[in-house]
Amino acid sequence: MTALKTSAGVLDIVRALAAGEALPQDLIAASHARAVALEGELRAFAHLPAEAPAVTSGAGPLTGVAVGVKDLIATADMPTTYGSAIYVDHQPAEDAYVVGRLKDLGATILGKTITTEFAWREPGPTRNPWNLGHTPGGSSSGSAASVASGSVQVALGTQTLGSVLRPAAYCGVVGLKPSHGTIALKGVHDLSQSLDHLGLFTRSVDDVAFVLSLLAGGPGAARRTIFPFGVAGVAPFPAPRIAWLRPAGAPALEDSQVALMEMAAARFAGSGANVQAVTLPEEFAELPAISATVCGAEGAANFGDLVARFPDKTSARLQALVERGAAIAATDYLAARAAQLALRAEFTRVLAGFDVLLTAPATGEAPEGLGETGDPGLCVPWTTIGVPAIALPAGTGPRGLPLGIQLVAPFGEDVKLLRVAKWCEGALAYPPRIAPGA
Amino acid sequence: MTALKTSAGVLDIVRALAAGEALPQDLIAASHARAVALEGELRAFAHLPAEAPAVTSGAGPLTGVAVGVKDLIATADMPTTYGSAIYVDHQPAEDAYVVGRLKDLGATILGKTITTEFAWREPGPTRNPWNLGHTPGGSSSGSAASVASGSVQVALGTQTLGSVLRPAAYCGVVGLKPSHGTIALKGVHDLSQSLDHLGLFTRSVDDVAFVLSLLAGGPGAARRTIFPFGVAGVAPFPAPRIAWLRPAGAPALEDSQVALMEMAAARFAGSGANVQAVTLPEEFAELPAISATVCGAEGAANFGDLVARFPDKTSARLQALVERGAAIAATDYLAARAAQLALRAEFTRVLAGFDVLLTAPATGEAPEGLGETGDPGLCVPWTTIGVPAIALPAGTGPRGLPLGIQLVAPFGEDVKLLRVAKWCEGALAYPPRIAPGA
Repeated sequence: MTALKTSAGVLDIVRALAAGEALPQDLIAASHARAVALEGELRAFAHLPAEAPAVTSGAGPLTGVAVGVKDLIATADMPTTYGSAIYVDHQPAEDAYVVGRLKDLGATILGKTITTEFAWREPGPTRNPWNLGHTPGGSSSGSAASVASGSVQVALGTQTLGSVLRPAAYCGVVGLKPSHGTIALKGVHDLSQSLDHLGLFTRSVDDVAFVLSLLAGGPGAARRTIFPFGVAGVAPFPAPRIAWLRPAGAPALEDSQVALMEMAAARFAGSGANVQAVTLPEEFAELPAISATVCGAEGAANFGDLVARFPDKTSARLQALVERGAAIAATDYLAARAAQLALRAEFTRVLAGFDVLLTAPATGEAPEGLGETGDPGLCVPWTTIGVPAIALPAGTGPRGLPLGIQLVAPFGEDVKLLRVAKWCEGALAYPPRIAPGA
Repeated sequence: MTALKTSAGVLDIVRALAAGEALPQDLIAASHARAVALEGELRAFAHLPAEAPAVTSGAGPLTGVAVGVKDLIATADMPTTYGSAIYVDHQPAEDAYVVGRLKDLGATILGKTITTEFAWREPGPTRNPWNLGHTPGGSSSGSAASVASGSVQVALGTQTLGSVLRPAAYCGVVGLKPSHGTIALKGVHDLSQSLDHLGLFTRSVDDVAFVLSLLAGGPGAARRTIFPFGVAGVAPFPAPRIAWLRPAGAPALEDSQVALMEMAAARFAGSGANVQAVTLPEEFAELPAISATVCGAEGAANFGDLVARFPDKTSARLQALVERGAAIAATDYLAARAAQLALRAEFTRVLAGFDVLLTAPATGEAPEGLGETGDPGLCVPWTTIGVPAIALPAGTGPRGLPLGIQLVAPFGEDVKLLRVAKWCEGALAYPPRIAPGA
């Protein structure tokens, strides 16, 4: 019996266990050992137990799978700080829905991964595993870094602006944000309820689809989607019709990201897709302002008391969010909410005749330094209208850091998005790779 | 074949048709004739066709039943003014969900009933059929008056503060507001989405339960309750445990209303109910303020543009709502929304050990004059937390006008509420009666 490669993903583990080629506890021990070995420099974890956790269920669909859980998400057996100095000793009484579900499925929570403060902008210490001088992105910083460096096969993240797809792109992994309301947020700290999404990091489309199929739903989930993705992997959606959106205006793409998008579009067209350049109706330009209004008001409502009570334990960035949000009129907030839902519906009409939209998930390579987590602007429109979006790794930039693409589908078209993503993954022929980590 | 009595209700009609004792068109013609005869003085209708509508479906569960539709609700074949001078010539292209559903069920829409302006406070011309010098209450003024005077067997209303149960009490009919989100609001003009409920007026619990069973659900309805009430009527919930709430503070009850509540409580206890006086936790005293914040903000968002565009065609009362609402901060609005849902859950805990809460639906008899529609304050708490509530007629006051009781159940306990209401109706032994009308 030999150990699996570090690059082995969820379905690799499922198959190896089924074939008797590995033992769950050995797999978890290997994941844990790698996480521990990398942690000194990578700083992906807010909490990483000193010993490998024991595998308690030998028969679940995710047995042997190591999962990193963003430290915005409650765990009953590990601290949960929300990335905040206020909660440095916090230990919730109950697991979040999604954590309990993972445990029920046999998965092992390897540790809690670093989040920015309350998933807002104040960075944690995590470094990009491809270049330790660069940010991994945020707010799901540790989740992206731990999947990219091979310590875990899956990590949970959340996205309110661009906190799953942007770090996924920066770290060269798959990042998925399903339609708003697909996975129950019970036990996940609110940032902005009308924008918050649970999302997933893996290293392949098959893995992310499999895990989403197992996690979707739960108490309070607004949607009840049946995801038909099992251990056989995702059936590619053949010859998809792809609407290619070159972002206009800020934030501008780096040359290498522009070139990557051209390469991807050409590759898809060459593989049989119908790729057409599109522009969006003018009103979509309002989405950043809509996002700012909704997130500002809801953020101020969520954090106003904390900021007032703990001026020394909240960041200037969080205080600025509260200050800005407190000045928003309820009528402006309600108008933004109405526009948000109207544009969600309008996006379905805009994409009529196409299966997905292709665009950039980030402006380019992860920025240098750890003081900022990069610009979420290329994810914000899709998060705001709550539509499913996925980032796929597709190349590298001039500094050797990963570059990705983003695929977006109309609200509720998560299954099709994943099937198209599987096809695109094949056309890109850019297999999963593990970051050196240190 | 003889005509049914004017007091015949929905189930009476169903049974008479099944027994071959009446013809649907005759029933509709009789309802129409009565409405026309009363209309000159009663002014219940915003639109009442000169000729009796033809019965088009002979086989529906509501065939032969005449329905009044509050003029806040869209009808594709009748004008829909929303009680507003702006919409005096408005004709929607589509029926509201609930109107289309009524037609599919065989019901005949007899006419559009008077609403206050956009279901806010500016009264229409409708008079109380028990005493034409008094208000019927509002905002569902014409719906309550038309059921009370026997022109229709059912009327649709809406309740955002106290617009179904209060006019039901003032007019001596049954008024039901199911849990928030039970009947789809598609095609009903918004006043305050987080507070707006579709509700029903009939003259008996059996009738209102039967009709609710047929109308519940629809596009966008937040709830999917199965109501088991058919033509056999409602099975009484025996010996209910009743929490009796004597309202403290404003608005104060009239002596006759106090006496009526004492009478009802004694009657219920004497019939085998376990009646216990209760008080509510302090935080329930915040509900009027929560209602004012939510309704103000959402009302301002809904009517701000209209008020600005049509200063001469909107009332000072509507303008004041917009002005007040525009000054509400988004954070205060969001805090009120959160409190609204927290108190909904808290109410379930408060009522543990009881089946329903008993309280007054109004301060007493309908006030004199048509310039105001009375104080909704005794309904506001239950509307705000979105719980099901029903008003039952139970007596009269010193001026001969009706008095009622209100029963309230925890969120989602609509079926139990109706079963308890049926038991209470029996214990009160106060059968339906038709107002003289003129």
